[in-house]
Amino acid sequence: MKDKRRGRHTVQFSSPPYIVSTYTIAGPLEGQGPLRDHFDAISKDGMYEQKSFEKAEAKMMEDAVNEVLRKTANLPEYIDYFVASDLLDQIVISSTTASRFPIPFIGMYSACTATALCSSIAAMLIDGGYASKVVVATSSHNSTAERQFRYPVEYGMQRPPYSQWTATGATAALVADSGEGPRITSCTLGCVIETGIKDPYDMGGAMAPAALDTIVQHFEDTSRDPDYYDLIITGDLGEFGHELLKELAQSQMNLKFPNNLSDCGMLLYNKDQGVDSGASGCVCSALVLFSKIYKELCKGAISKVLLVATGALHSPTSCHQGESIPSIAHAIAIER
Amino acid sequence: MKDKRRGRHTVQFSSPPYIVSTYTIAGPLEGQGPLRDHFDAISKDGMYEQKSFEKAEAKMMEDAVNEVLRKTANLPEYIDYFVASDLLDQIVISSTTASRFPIPFIGMYSACTATALCSSIAAMLIDGGYASKVVVATSSHNSTAERQFRYPVEYGMQRPPYSQWTATGATAALVADSGEGPRITSCTLGCVIETGIKDPYDMGGAMAPAALDTIVQHFEDTSRDPDYYDLIITGDLGEFGHELLKELAQSQMNLKFPNNLSDCGMLLYNKDQGVDSGASGCVCSALVLFSKIYKELCKGAISKVLLVATGALHSPTSCHQGESIPSIAHAIAIER
Repeated sequence: MKDKRRGRHTVQFSSPPYIVSTYTIAGPLEGQGPLRDHFDAISKDGMYEQKSFEKAEAKMMEDAVNEVLRKTANLPEYIDYFVASDLLDQIVISSTTASRFPIPFIGMYSACTATALCSSIAAMLIDGGYASKVVVATSSHNSTAERQFRYPVEYGMQRPPYSQWTATGATAALVADSGEGPRITSCTLGCVIETGIKDPYDMGGAMAPAALDTIVQHFEDTSRDPDYYDLIITGDLGEFGHELLKELAQSQMNLKFPNNLSDCGMLLYNKDQGVDSGASGCVCSALVLFSKIYKELCKGAISKVLLVATGALHSPTSCHQGESIPSIAHAIAIER
Repeated sequence: MKDKRRGRHTVQFSSPPYIVSTYTIAGPLEGQGPLRDHFDAISKDGMYEQKSFEKAEAKMMEDAVNEVLRKTANLPEYIDYFVASDLLDQIVISSTTASRFPIPFIGMYSACTATALCSSIAAMLIDGGYASKVVVATSSHNSTAERQFRYPVEYGMQRPPYSQWTATGATAALVADSGEGPRITSCTLGCVIETGIKDPYDMGGAMAPAALDTIVQHFEDTSRDPDYYDLIITGDLGEFGHELLKELAQSQMNLKFPNNLSDCGMLLYNKDQGVDSGASGCVCSALVLFSKIYKELCKGAISKVLLVATGALHSPTSCHQGESIPSIAHAIAIER
């Protein structure tokens, strides 16, 4: 797995920040999936008692932030930064949520890598001494994202088998310089990779090369092998992208994973839930990481996880204009 | 100017990073304005020899990054992070540009505060020891932004007198831990303020309270008075928002500025250029800061500048749904 790399892109933290607490709100379909017992809350429908899907998504994020503050007995005034990201144009869900809290707001956009990118920035701000407590949050909503990126769900548009299902829900996590919980020990921020894929349904295909690039860079920078981790989990490649990643890893890098490679997009739903290749959306990897995996890390059932969150950075306009989909992957290592 | 503040939101850097070099590309209208002799390049039209306005904007940002690398004799491989932001949905201009360079990409969205937010993050990554060299970039384009946020320019839609003109252009700057040039000595990241304004033409009115909030916070945190700075320059309030800021500062905070308060939105165009209340767009404050002001800082004509970049965080969807405009301001202090 050697090739000519571009230099070190991995930060290893001298005082690894703690993920002190998390809160997960899942949508109705997610709440019927295999992780249903691990979520903190499940919405009975997509409206979440609001007047629009967009308001529902924003209220979910707001509730997740409030619940993390409550669980950790923090007032907003104790939090140094609110770092958030979502899929909607102008990250309007994150901005709306930020308007509810008197916390300096750092808005990011990196599609479905949200959790890894926001957590990386939070960890650098904390390890660097600029913050003690940072709340990171993200969300996505099937009905807000599908009508923005593709077609309104009500159309009943036929979807190709490699398409993915944008997950509904919101999560928040408190990252801090002290406390208990698993720690963010390193992060590898990725470069943007473009391979010419133009089909906005084929996100797994577009993102798999970016995932590989960041994984290889992480191992190169840290002099680790894949078996260092109990679990290497990509963000939302789905079944199709997951298979492509394994093929690319072996054929291009002679890199094999010792049965510890998985994908959040394949863990959020059961196969009979009609989600084609699996889940996607900012909240996909966040719901998987901050529920079951977080609890397993806290309990000690596993102790080393590498999340490689993946993002397809196209816009509806860029797709309509025939541009290909730039993709990216950001990785965070979480260890207890 | 005392009130109950929320705690310290200002970071003062122990090793203030240098703004080693900047490159500015202005659009045609900007190139006829009062700063025309200070830009590095001026596009003769909005197409910039590309096939769409979006491609033109992306090519401008790419060229600005390449020129900053060239001026400073850097290869992309020497740069630790590319931190960028723009106005378009999914910050697709920044992502497209990032795909041209093998540099880890940090994508941000904070509307027209882009330069202050990206520079703040760059400065924290450098001062914190996570990077030596960071390229920050931003762009906006009148024809891409107007058709996304309001109406296509070709409609000839009548605009109210308090409306602002989205500036066209792109900038890049190299921020580094060593070298020559003015230094980023502190940053104050702002909270999101919502005052109920729903008119997407009235951005100055929506953003002025956010600007005041961040300015007051900065002075409170640093124990400075307005006369510490040679120039306090807001991002893009325009004439209308600028007057409102002064009124709010005096009536709410008993805060007066000693003739050193200005606004990038009022400096980019001449009054006879038909831009109503002034300029807006991510590149507005970037074009003003990184051309004339940067040169004056380098020469020593001025030595202390506070940029208070302002952003209106609405999306077209949120406006159509009748939501008000969340606003924010981020400040960076630049000193020689």
